[in-house]
Amino acid sequence: MSRGNGLDPKQRRALAQSLTRILDASVEEALAGLADAGPEPAQRLGMTGPPGAGKSMLICRLAARRLERDRRIGVLAIDPTSPVSQGSILGDRVRMETVAEHPALYVRSVPSRRAHDGLCDNIADLLLTMEGFGFDDVVLETVGVGQVEFAVRSLVDTVVLVLVPESGDTIQAMKAGILETADVIVVNKADLPGAGKIRAEVNAIIRRKKGDGGWLPPVIMASATEDNGIDELDDAIERHAAWLAEHRDREATRRERSRYHMQNLLLRRASEVLDGTAAESFDDALPQLFDRLVAGLTESREDKVGRRT
Amino acid sequence: MSRGNGLDPKQRRALAQSLTRILDASVEEALAGLADAGPEPAQRLGMTGPPGAGKSMLICRLAARRLERDRRIGVLAIDPTSPVSQGSILGDRVRMETVAEHPALYVRSVPSRRAHDGLCDNIADLLLTMEGFGFDDVVLETVGVGQVEFAVRSLVDTVVLVLVPESGDTIQAMKAGILETADVIVVNKADLPGAGKIRAEVNAIIRRKKGDGGWLPPVIMASATEDNGIDELDDAIERHAAWLAEHRDREATRRERSRYHMQNLLLRRASEVLDGTAAESFDDALPQLFDRLVAGLTESREDKVGRRT
Repeated sequence: MSRGNGLDPKQRRALAQSLTRILDASVEEALAGLADAGPEPAQRLGMTGPPGAGKSMLICRLAARRLERDRRIGVLAIDPTSPVSQGSILGDRVRMETVAEHPALYVRSVPSRRAHDGLCDNIADLLLTMEGFGFDDVVLETVGVGQVEFAVRSLVDTVVLVLVPESGDTIQAMKAGILETADVIVVNKADLPGAGKIRAEVNAIIRRKKGDGGWLPPVIMASATEDNGIDELDDAIERHAAWLAEHRDREATRRERSRYHMQNLLLRRASEVLDGTAAESFDDALPQLFDRLVAGLTESREDKVGRRT
Repeated sequence: MSRGNGLDPKQRRALAQSLTRILDASVEEALAGLADAGPEPAQRLGMTGPPGAGKSMLICRLAARRLERDRRIGVLAIDPTSPVSQGSILGDRVRMETVAEHPALYVRSVPSRRAHDGLCDNIADLLLTMEGFGFDDVVLETVGVGQVEFAVRSLVDTVVLVLVPESGDTIQAMKAGILETADVIVVNKADLPGAGKIRAEVNAIIRRKKGDGGWLPPVIMASATEDNGIDELDDAIERHAAWLAEHRDREATRRERSRYHMQNLLLRRASEVLDGTAAESFDDALPQLFDRLVAGLTESREDKVGRRT
């Protein structure tokens, strides 16, 4: 699609089918499908934070601003999924999808099943596929305050952490280092009591930790439901993008993303090998099991892609 | 140590040193150190939940009951750690350590640095080491509602999930499937408003999901600070242990723990290999990079443990 135009229905179907295919792709398919050079990178934005912080609504509001500037926006929203029921819980995602009628906005919910870090299998490929369809912005929405944020850090350019005053967990979460993964911090529902206190605490932590001449994450007071603070958020993201353009080591970024990609594929492959390992092998001493696992990783791949010399 | 006796100061020092050595162990050392058969398993208990839920205090109260029954209790508490500062935040852990003066209670805080799932490197070995010192109960305390809980599920016999009424995130967290990883659910600070509502909601979800004739997780109302509900919690844990003794597939449990162990070691080793991979290799097509990674896993291990035929 060209700038200013959206995806026509045919393109939307093609994108939806591509994403579904990639979601279901095996490790071998994922590897084989990526021999080509990647697409032109989009501006990748991560929107993370605890459940109920209003991330979906913030994305809607932010998207509205960016659509006005003729930007094309793809959103990948990862739903937490029960390991038992394996079902995807949409919940308030529905709200966003009803807004997603603008031709230049595309929203896809994917389940978080399987992946070890709370994201989903093939997430790196899903983001690349979105980029391949020519979006200017690709937004990755993830639920949770925890390990997920560190994974998101490896996948996007700008991490927006959304906090809310009502969460008693906020300050504890900051302690856990989550705050330090963020490039922009939003205190959403800023009309609630305690918002100013949260801002002060966040600022105190940021200034202590980030006093190294690098990027100082702005703390934005917002209310997505009232449409307040969204321009400031939009501006903060743009300022961070400009900062990255000047300061980021592109090689290190590419390396970090490839590393994430590799480790995810390796873990999935390892799960498959272990699934295929006889029960009695699990009683072996661990060094032997490790050796078998590594051998299995190689052999299995050789079986599938053809023997090499 | 024999039943009813605690660890003497010499044993405590030995255990502390063992744990420190294992915390710092490389993948190779971790593998080499585990050629022997494992110790007699202890009753492993996971205590998880959001920050600020009062897990440490609950463990103190629970330990007091169990110490009265001449049980020896080892606690491994994992602190969330900043990926930036790499420092361990003790916070309210200190409170528990001051209680830990009973000779049959041992508490160790470890940082969560590095590990991909929010726990810590060598966590499986740390638990085995605790077991090797003859504790009847080994308690793993982890902070957070998220991916961590699924990892804990692979490491312990009984998962106790601690919720609090004040957390607006509680129900959202349940949706995320966390609730289904729990064997026993505690609503702590049950004297606060909203406790009854949380219990009703939790019960509704449990009964819907677990209506398969299996273990039905009890929901315990407790107040650790008031020492209320602790006997009920203790009893629920014992009932679950009895249920496991009758229903659990021991082979499947051993397999699951070995799998967790292997995947963790493999991921660490992969990180090391990728760290040692030249920058230009990260521009290769991913299938080639994957092949190099797998080859690196084998070669590096052969280098260190001596060439095999």
